[in-house]
Order: sequence, then C-alpha cells, then structure tokens
Amino acid sequence: MVQLGLVGLGKMGFNMRERLRAAGHEVVGYDRNAEVSDVGTLADLVASLEAPRIVWVMVPAGEATRATVAELGELLSEGDLVIDGGNSRFTDDTHNAAVLAEHGVGYLDVGVSGGVWGKDNGYGLMAGGSEADVERAMPIFDALRPEGPRDEGFAHAGGVGAGHYAKMVHNGIEYGLMQAYAEGFELLEASDVVQNVPGVIKAWQRGTVVRSWLLDLLIRALEEDPQLSELEGYVEDSGEGRWTLEEAINNSVPAPVISAALFARFASRQEDSSAMRAVAALRNQFGGHSVKSVSK
Amino acid sequence: MVQLGLVGLGKMGFNMRERLRAAGHEVVGYDRNAEVSDVGTLADLVASLEAPRIVWVMVPAGEATRATVAELGELLSEGDLVIDGGNSRFTDDTHNAAVLAEHGVGYLDVGVSGGVWGKDNGYGLMAGGSEADVERAMPIFDALRPEGPRDEGFAHAGGVGAGHYAKMVHNGIEYGLMQAYAEGFELLEASDVVQNVPGVIKAWQRGTVVRSWLLDLLIRALEEDPQLSELEGYVEDSGEGRWTLEEAINNSVPAPVISAALFARFASRQEDSSAMRAVAALRNQFGGHSVKSVSK
Amino acid sequence: MVQLGLVGLGKMGFNMRERLRAAGHEVVGYDRNAEVSDVGTLADLVASLEAPRIVWVMVPAGEATRATVAELGELLSEGDLVIDGGNSRFTDDTHNAAVLAEHGVGYLDVGVSGGVWGKDNGYGLMAGGSEADVERAMPIFDALRPEGPRDEGFAHAGGVGAGHYAKMVHNGIEYGLMQAYAEGFELLEASDVVQNVPGVIKAWQRGTVVRSWLLDLLIRALEEDPQLSELEGYVEDSGEGRWTLEEAINNSVPAPVISAALFARFASRQEDSSAMRAVAALRNQFGGHSVKSVSK
Amino acid sequence: MVQLGLVGLGKMGFNMRERLRAAGHEVVGYDRNAEVSDVGTLADLVASLEAPRIVWVMVPAGEATRATVAELGELLSEGDLVIDGGNSRFTDDTHNAAVLAEHGVGYLDVGVSGGVWGKDNGYGLMAGGSEADVERAMPIFDALRPEGPRDEGFAHAGGVGAGHYAKMVHNGIEYGLMQAYAEGFELLEASDVVQNVPGVIKAWQRGTVVRSWLLDLLIRALEEDPQLSELEGYVEDSGEGRWTLEEAINNSVPAPVISAALFARFASRQEDSSAMRAVAALRNQFGGHSVKSVSK
Repeated sequence: MVQLGLVGLGKMGFNMRERLRAAGHEVVGYDRNAEVSDVGTLADLVASLEAPRIVWVMVPAGEATRATVAELGELLSEGDLVIDGGNSRFTDDTHNAAVLAEHGVGYLDVGVSGGVWGKDNGYGLMAGGSEADVERAMPIFDALRPEGPRDEGFAHAGGVGAGHYAKMVHNGIEYGLMQAYAEGFELLEASDVVQNVPGVIKAWQRGTVVRSWLLDLLIRALEEDPQLSELEGYVEDSGEGRWTLEEAINNSVPAPVISAALFARFASRQEDSSAMRAVAALRNQFGGHSVKSVSK
Repeated sequence: MVQLGLVGLGKMGFNMRERLRAAGHEVVGYDRNAEVSDVGTLADLVASLEAPRIVWVMVPAGEATRATVAELGELLSEGDLVIDGGNSRFTDDTHNAAVLAEHGVGYLDVGVSGGVWGKDNGYGLMAGGSEADVERAMPIFDALRPEGPRDEGFAHAGGVGAGHYAKMVHNGIEYGLMQAYAEGFELLEASDVVQNVPGVIKAWQRGTVVRSWLLDLLIRALEEDPQLSELEGYVEDSGEGRWTLEEAINNSVPAPVISAALFARFASRQEDSSAMRAVAALRNQFGGHSVKSVSK
Repeated sequence: MVQLGLVGLGKMGFNMRERLRAAGHEVVGYDRNAEVSDVGTLADLVASLEAPRIVWVMVPAGEATRATVAELGELLSEGDLVIDGGNSRFTDDTHNAAVLAEHGVGYLDVGVSGGVWGKDNGYGLMAGGSEADVERAMPIFDALRPEGPRDEGFAHAGGVGAGHYAKMVHNGIEYGLMQAYAEGFELLEASDVVQNVPGVIKAWQRGTVVRSWLLDLLIRALEEDPQLSELEGYVEDSGEGRWTLEEAINNSVPAPVISAALFARFASRQEDSSAMRAVAALRNQFGGHSVKSVSK
Repeated sequence: MVQLGLVGLGKMGFNMRERLRAAGHEVVGYDRNAEVSDVGTLADLVASLEAPRIVWVMVPAGEATRATVAELGELLSEGDLVIDGGNSRFTDDTHNAAVLAEHGVGYLDVGVSGGVWGKDNGYGLMAGGSEADVERAMPIFDALRPEGPRDEGFAHAGGVGAGHYAKMVHNGIEYGLMQAYAEGFELLEASDVVQNVPGVIKAWQRGTVVRSWLLDLLIRALEEDPQLSELEGYVEDSGEGRWTLEEAINNSVPAPVISAALFARFASRQEDSSAMRAVAALRNQFGGHSVKSVSK
C-alpha cells in the first residue's frame, strides 16, 4: 500500500480518491473546497506525507495545473514525484517537468479516460515519463486502472508528454466516433423508412461491427429520452479535439473526420453563421435567389 | 436571323427573350403567365413558327420540363428541334431525347450560367447533342453567349446529357467557391486582428490570386451591408450540388470540398440538429458534462 | 425447431448454416458451388422443403439477389416466405417484395452484421417487413443472433426495406468509426512523442471512452503486425457507405464524417489524382511553384 | 518619387524592383546572391539610403525574416521604417515591431498577392500598422498595386499583424477555390459524359458564375497539357493554409472547405497512408475482406 497526496477533488479527483482508498491506499486529498478537502492548504498536504512523496494533481488543465505544479515545486523535496493526471496539453509537460526538476522532483504526465464511470469500472491510463518513475507509481496505476491484464488498461506511452499526447489522440478519436454515431442517428430520424429508431440502435449492442461503450451510452440516453428531445444540439469542446487537429497539421496528417467532428461542435454553438450569410448574399447577388432577412 | 419559340418566361427566360430580340432574332415566347406571354398556349406557339422549328424550353427542372418536352413531342413535326436550357438533371436528357426522337424531333441540352446578369453580360453556355443540331442552333447560342471568342463562352460538351452534366459540375464548383469565400469572411469577422474586413475584401478585387466574379459580387453585397447583418445564414440549394456529389460517388471521385459546401447549406437550414443532440447526450452520459436542455 | 432453405453458402451463408444447425434447426443449403451445396438446384431446394417454406437468400447484393428472388417467386407457393439477408440496397426491397407478392409469397429484408465472427458470437440482426412474417421467422433470428436479451441483438426496424436501411446506416457509421481510429493511429505514428503506439492502443481496451469491438480488432491486427507494415493503404468499399451518403443527400442530413470516410477510401485507391494535378498546375501557373513532372 | 531599400531579390523581390523602378522610384536592392544585388551587404544598403529610410524586406518567412529585421534594427536609425512584405505569420509581426521599436524604427506588415504575374498586373496589397506609416509608404503601395481605384488593390487592414492576417485568410480561401475547381475537373475527367473537358472549362471563362483568375490559369494550363498528364498530383503547401486552419480553431470558426483543401494536399504527398492501412486491417479482421499486401 502506498501513501498519496491528491490535489483537486472535483468530479474526477473525488472519485479517484474513493477508488484508491477502496484499494487500500492512503490518500490525503486537498481541494479549495473545504467540504471535500482532507487538509486546509497545499502546504498541509505536503506536510502530511512522508518523504519521498507522490502527489497526484487533478485540477483543470492550463493555468490552474501550471500554478499548482509551480507551488508544489516550492513545497516538495528532492526525490518526491508529481503526477499530472489532468487533461493538460502535452506541450505543458516539458515545462512542468523542468520546473520540478530544478527542485529535484520527478514528473509523470498521465492521461486518464473513463469519465464518471471510472470510479467503478476503473480508468484507462496512459503515462509519460521515466521508467523508474512509472515503476514507482505502479501501485497507484494498478488501483486506478480497470481489472484485467495491466496492458489492457495501462500503457507507458513514452517520455514526458507522451501520456497526455496519447490521451489527446484518444479524445480526438472519441470526437470522430461520437460524430459518426450522431450522423447515423440523424439520418435514421430524418428518413421515415425505419420506424423504430431506438430499437434499431439498441439492437446494435450485441454481435454488430459498431458495438462499443459509446453505443451503450447512446442506448442508455435513448432509453431515457427516445428522441433526445429534451436536449439542445449544443456541444462544448474542452480542448483536446483542437489540439489533436493542430498536431495533425503540424505532422501533415490528413484528419478529415476529426476536423469534421470538431467543426460540427463549433457550428452547433452558433446562433447564426457569418459564413452562411455570405453564401446567402452571393446567391442573392447572382441569381436573385430569395434570402431570409432578419426580422425587424 | 432565326426564328425561335421560347417556353418559360421567368427570371431567366424573360431576360433571354430580351437578349435574343436585341440581337435581331424573332422570338415567340410562351408562359402560363399571360402578362408576359406572346401567345395563349403552347400549341399557339408551335403554330406561330415556321417549320423546321426551334423551341427553347426554360422551365423548372424535373416534372415541369419533362411534361413540356412530352407536350412538344406531340405538337412538333419531324425535323424540328427542342433545346432544354433549364437546370435539368443530365439523367433526364436521355429520356427527353428519346421521347422527341419518336416524333423525329431533335434535342439539345444546354447548361446556362450567368444568373440575372446574363441579360447584359451574356450567358455561359454548355451544349450536349449532335454536331448538326448544335450547328443549327449556333446563331441562338451566339446571341446568348457573352461577346468575345465563341469558345470562351460556349462549348459543345458532348452527346445528349453532356451540356447539363457540364453545368452540374459548374454548379458543384460554384458551391465550393462560395463556401471558401464564406469561411474566409467568417474568420476575418470572428478574429479581431483585421479591423477593416469589407476594405480588405474589396482590395482583393485587383491583382490578387482570389479575384473572381463571385468576389466582385461579395464586395457588392458588403457595400450594401458591411457585416451582412440584414441577412440570415439560411441557404437553400437547388439540386445541382446534390447531383454533383452523387456523380462523385458514382465515379469514386473524392469530393470533400463540394460535399462540405453542400452540408454547410443543409446545416444552415436546421433549427436544431439531431446529430448534435446525440453528441451532447453522449458527453453527458460519460463525463457528466452539462447539457443545454430545451426550455419549458 | 424449424426447417429452412438457405441460398448462398459463401463466407457468410456457410457460417450461418453451421450456426443454425448447431441450434438444432434443419437447414437445406444451395450454392452454385457443388462442393458446399446440399442440393443440385434451386428447384431441388424448394422441393426438399415442406410448405409453408422459409427460404433465406444470402447471395451478393444487386443483380444476383434480384435474380434469385425472381426465380424463387416462380418456384415457391402461396404462403411461403423469402428472407433476403444480403447487403441489398433498401430500394431493392420494395421491388423484391412486389415480385414475390404476385405469387402470394411473403418477404422480409434482414440486415446482418458481425462478419466472420458471427458464427461464434452471433449476428446482429435488423428486420423489415410485416409483424406476422417477423414472428414466423423468429426462431431463426433467435438462433442467429447473439446470446443475451433479444432486443440487444435483434430489432424489427419497420416495414419492407427498413431492415436493409438500418443495416446501411449501421455500415455508414462503421465507416466513420474506422476512419476515426485510423486518423488517430496515423497521428500517433507520424509524431515521435509517443514511442509505444501499439501499447497505447492496446491500453485503450479497458476503461476508456473509445473502447469498442473495432478497437479490439485493431489491437488484434497490431499484435500480428505492430506497424501494419505488411499491408497497403488500399481500401475497397462495398456500397453501403455510398448509399448512406446518398440517403443523407436525399434527406438533407449533413454527413461530413461519413462522407470523409468514404472519400478517404476513394483516394486510397488512386495511383494519382487528377484533382491534385490540377492544383499543382494552378500553383505552378500563378506562383512559378515547382511541380513534379511525370518521369519519362 | 521615393527612395527605397529592398532586401531579397528572389522571384518576388526581383520583379517588385522592376515594377517600382518602372514607376520612377529609386530602389537599392540587396540580396545574398551578388549577381542580382545592387550592394554588397545589408549595411551597404542602409548606408546608401538617405534618412529617414524605408526598407522593404522580401525574404522567406520565419527565421530569415526575423533575422533580417533584427539586423535592420541594429543598422537603421530612429524615424526609419521597415516593411515586411513576405509571407510571415501574423504572430511574428508583434515581435518584429517590438524589436524595431526599441530603435525608434517603425514597422508595417504587408501581405502581397499576385505571384509572378504581379510585375505586369500589379500586386494586391494588405497593410497592417499605423495610419502614419501607411501614409508614408503610400507612394510605394501605389506603384506596386494594380492600376485602377486604390481601394480595389490596396487595403489598410488594421494595426500591426493585420496585413499578414488578411493575406493568410486570402491564401486559405485560395486553397479552397483551387480544390473546388480541382474536384470539378476530376469529376469531368472521371465520367465519360462530357467528351470535351478542356473545351467546357475554357467556355466557363465568360458569362458564368465560376469565372475567375484562377480559372483563367487553369485554362492556360489545360491549353499546354489538356489532361495535365505531364504533372504528378503532388502538392506542397507553404504554411498559410495551416495557419488559417489554426486561426479557425482558435476562433471556433468551422472551416470544412479550407481544411479539406489542406488535407488533400497532405494526402497528395503520401506514398502510402498509415490511416488507410489501419482501415484495411480492420476490414480484414472483421469481414475477412481481402487486402493488398506489400509486394516482397
């Protein structure tokens, strides 16, 4: 059993603390929200751990993670280890590792997949960093990952940054998968040939080529709301799809499906589209085609 | 100077009658709308022409054109010639030609581009049919096409159907061109780096690689309404883009740009998207991500 | 236990005969290949079944299926039932049903998913036709579908055509899913950040959002050939993706992901692209950019 | 008439010197290639100009431009002005302007379009920087831009960076336009309906909606090589398309056409595609579909 500090007890961190404790590990959690926090400050958390310490950071990617890592660099000691399990951009990892290295503190970046289901199912994990640091954190990884063979739920992806890179690509794929199901659903809804759309999708669950966990979730959503009529077709994105596309550009990799999925999200959030106003204007200009004017 | 019957005096046909008469040709026009028609019935039109007759059909594609051609087959005589100048699908042409051939009547299909500007600028023309029929109709083509060398505004594209096929592809390209300008316009509007968007687009008119007639029309629209704020981003399509994409599929030709332009029009007409409701539902299912619910 | 005629004993039909027999049903199979056929002719097959008969057709979609159905119409008697389990286009079903109805023979169209794995795992099934015909064939469906609740591997999708329509959309989604994984794989391969690409993909198998049966198959392929270097990036398509896209067009449904996946297959089969020659020519024309000329 | 230093006498800079001199301006050109250079060193160029100086930089974007600007910062004096007319990324401009501002030297970024044709036709120009600097350089802009109204070939797009931003979007649009024509060309080539492909495209030159300068260039290329059979479908990209897509991502702007055009170029340069090997592997895994193996 190992001892672990866990910074960030939101939707993901809170559940991970539960899962780690259930596996018998000692977890000291810190969150700005005192109701869920085990200690009062980040310094208290560090003080409550025996060296050499392991601190898992699970706070929002970007500024919050960078600031937490910097603060941990000041608080921790040589030989300690920080693990960033958030959805950081892989380009942050080199920086974070360097900040910590100045204090002799090690660094692992870990992509964590599984969402709210991970507490019970376990989390898919992709780690970046040195072999020694990965080995050291393995009891934690083994507790967090799903049951079954280790290599079916955990990978050491490569050096620093590789864990978040793998998670970024994972999420880019996820965008494409979701959009593929979504287009099929819309076509089934739009056509009147299939009269039993939720039934058809439910029947894809066993035996078919398209069966997947995302399909199971779609079926679950359709069981609650067979036409998804309670929802708006408005979809946020949290960054990984954009980064995947930028990496595709940087590596000259065609990514038509992932980009289409991302653009569909962008479009879903637009009340009106400047681009389509321009197309409407052009059609009106050359063909005298009627246009819809804004109601006054 | 030739004598010509012209069936259909809408936005396009009306202007074409003007242009043909201005060129000295004798045009007898027929339209269901008596206010613009020169004769009372299609039979009157046929009766008013001297054999061998040429009748140009300029009515909506599909059922209306097929019905008009069938009726002309009954009314016309061996040696007459029908020209379908509408936006018919090329697959209609073989049928129309066969219907007329039973009566010894010839057939040409002609794609006509230029919109409301054609009356003054002339129309770009693409003809399908036999060499002899094309030669026979050449005085009409010469009157309708723009000034300048004939082969810069007229082509004999091939056999029956080739004229409408060429026009279909022309329109597919047009979809892509419009969408390309539209995406650029939206990006300029969305970013705050360029402060003078209409000025920048206007400056593309001379010397640049992107100068075109469509660009001139966009500039014209922006001069009337610099942010196109009077318009809604709602864009119809009249079929040729769909047919182009279907032909791309039939010929295993990748058409990512033309399809993207068509799909952007489809999406512009949706108030809400089933597909994006499905994506929102999935994100909510796996990640507990918040969704927008329909307001009650 | 029911008695069933099965026409077509190729990769799919052969396995289905095995699975049906293993479930205790009596199957008389006919194939042009005498080595696998139980009877000498289609007429023999019909003669060997007791009325009212059920004949399952599992031959290539299109002409072969239409011809088989027409021949069965001549051979079968009032009250018999034909089931087309092939990958027919849904538009064929109305025709096939009408041909058989003239002889008082019923018709069901059934989409069958599962590939070569179906023999052991069972097949996902989507049926179109009347409630009564579906009920009548249910013992067969129950034998073919995977174990578990019936509605997780079988759906009565709607009237005639609905089964193949549902299967068509299923396959359209499948194209999108495969392309999403493929783009992610290519990006992981192209970038040098992740050093252990097969390991990362294998680790997605449990716990992650992207886990699926297709992912399991990709892992299986990577275990045999970690960089897939034994294969060429040349991908056929068997029609359902094209039909899905055509139906998206017919129903004004944006399908950017499914179309991108289809076009990627088209492009994979081109040795050289006319389109890209045109782009190269344009760049050379305006910018004097160098081009690659065909070697002589 | 003004005096101007011009750094970089490649394909673009060399022609611009010609055009500026033809307009009566005094141009001192410097290039590392002594054969075309008027002076021996950049310092010589600066020394040969009377203060306050204007120096136009026309060297490759990125490191070369940044280094030239830095060196000019050391050589020039307060009140001088540097104009970067290359294809720099707009994000470089803030940096370049700051480097020069330390020396009291002003900065304009100018997007220049027109390629090798600009020498005779004039160049489309988009400038970013202060009003005063733009006014000061106006005689140069007037000499470089095409004849006709100034605002049809020149725009002051906004502050520093806006000129290159406008040029970047211009080039993004250009990618989309080229790909639209290219897809149409490929479809005409692939189908056998149109027998006279070059003739049809040539006939789009006058009167049609798709007429443009790029179309004129395509016609020019087809006149030299009617099937473009001398070329390979291999297309480079020089960065602006990538940057446009990245800016679309940054601004949440859907850019399906521009991205498709960029990805088509990426794909055109691949001998084989990892992604399509993955799709082939998957089809083989689930369906036993045959694959093409690499020849040994």
